[in-house]
Amino acid sequence: MTRYALALEYDGRAFSGWQVQPDRVTVQGALERALSQMAGAPVRAHAAGRTDAGVHASRQIVHFDTDANRSLTAWVRGVNSFLPEGVAVLWAREVPEHFHSRFVATARHYRYLLLNHPVRPGLLAGRVGWAHQQLDLDALRAAIPHLLGTHDFSSFRAAECQAKSPVKTLSRLDMRVDGQMIYFDFSADAFLHHMVRNLMGALLHVARGNEAPEWMAGLVAAQNRSVAPPTFMPDGLYLAGVSYPAEFGLSTEPEPRYGLI
Amino acid sequence: MTRYALALEYDGRAFSGWQVQPDRVTVQGALERALSQMAGAPVRAHAAGRTDAGVHASRQIVHFDTDANRSLTAWVRGVNSFLPEGVAVLWAREVPEHFHSRFVATARHYRYLLLNHPVRPGLLAGRVGWAHQQLDLDALRAAIPHLLGTHDFSSFRAAECQAKSPVKTLSRLDMRVDGQMIYFDFSADAFLHHMVRNLMGALLHVARGNEAPEWMAGLVAAQNRSVAPPTFMPDGLYLAGVSYPAEFGLSTEPEPRYGLI
Repeated sequence: MTRYALALEYDGRAFSGWQVQPDRVTVQGALERALSQMAGAPVRAHAAGRTDAGVHASRQIVHFDTDANRSLTAWVRGVNSFLPEGVAVLWAREVPEHFHSRFVATARHYRYLLLNHPVRPGLLAGRVGWAHQQLDLDALRAAIPHLLGTHDFSSFRAAECQAKSPVKTLSRLDMRVDGQMIYFDFSADAFLHHMVRNLMGALLHVARGNEAPEWMAGLVAAQNRSVAPPTFMPDGLYLAGVSYPAEFGLSTEPEPRYGLI
Repeated sequence: MTRYALALEYDGRAFSGWQVQPDRVTVQGALERALSQMAGAPVRAHAAGRTDAGVHASRQIVHFDTDANRSLTAWVRGVNSFLPEGVAVLWAREVPEHFHSRFVATARHYRYLLLNHPVRPGLLAGRVGWAHQQLDLDALRAAIPHLLGTHDFSSFRAAECQAKSPVKTLSRLDMRVDGQMIYFDFSADAFLHHMVRNLMGALLHVARGNEAPEWMAGLVAAQNRSVAPPTFMPDGLYLAGVSYPAEFGLSTEPEPRYGLI
């Protein structure tokens, strides 16, 4: 038996999220079917992050075990020929048996693409989030430091979250403005369920002038989801990369394939 | 009666091209229905470029006439509320009656987004073209000057093209490489049917090493479609803007809304 890791990109609009569900087209379902075809035997796929419906991935990391002896090219281009259009394997590597896409990951990286303009997105509908009000960028920048570091992120945790602890370390929250677009880069050791979308909801609450930037510190301290603004739309959310210990030899930095995505 | 110009963006995948066809969802059909709802009377829409199925627009220019007295906001955000998801009106302006989106245009601008990588696009399937072979970028750069200027472009003209003359002036063909992506910017007074896709097909023929860059000069001189390489896929093609005489006060430069698109 050999364990492989592979990187996957997908359009979240083409699937009902990562996880296999009866009567739904999911990324896991499509990938397991393609891997099984290539292996000639059933294959189970395990993802670093189980993305929700409508959430995209520019670099999801998956591992699987198989007895089938195939080249790395077969696990990439061969498997791609069995996958539907909105998903592709980017690379595959052999990894040791103690590698696990989810349990040994040291950091996850998400990017949020936000269109800030009175007119809704048409060309990239479903692929960018949308804020139609003029946003206060200075307030946004001032709110960010209150989120960085190690906190109990219960205020940003979905009710159905299964994480053992709500304490996570948000090591990066960068924001870059380019015309009508704002790009947010989030990195943490791990994220709670809906955490990025809930952080976006709170950031936009400040950016729309509903609260001062300092309010964010109190929201974190409250450790209470019920006092926080609503979950923001999934449309602009991309799982952009996963970091692993150096021993596994997997590149750990997100590398946008299409320029900004 | 008042004449309006509006700018439109759309995802070519969501429609069977611009032009109204029976039993097909087209951009023109969707827009005319939305404009008619807003006007309370039938409205006919005229586009600067009648894009084919699968071709996108980041800035298509359309004009229409109406007796309905509505604000510019109504023609933008009101009409958007009647339009399906993959299309949006970006702005609307009142224009004089001698304005015509197609007949008074002085230049059209197209952008082609090409992914050059062994692995096919998944996340942006249908939104970028794909060349899986390693391309010779120096050969590509050397081929471009042979296309610039005023030529009989019959070698790049689809059989069904209805243009009066095959002589056009290609004033711009810029190429920019960013990682796995190559961006091509085409500007001309007008384009023949399939001209950009046919130019892309010929450029890629050189970039794959099938012919030397100088071969392009002979291909232009041949004025014969049957000796040219095949039409390249529509996936990465975007109508990016249309220029008009200054008197109409319409901004004439393409302004990417989403960063690179």
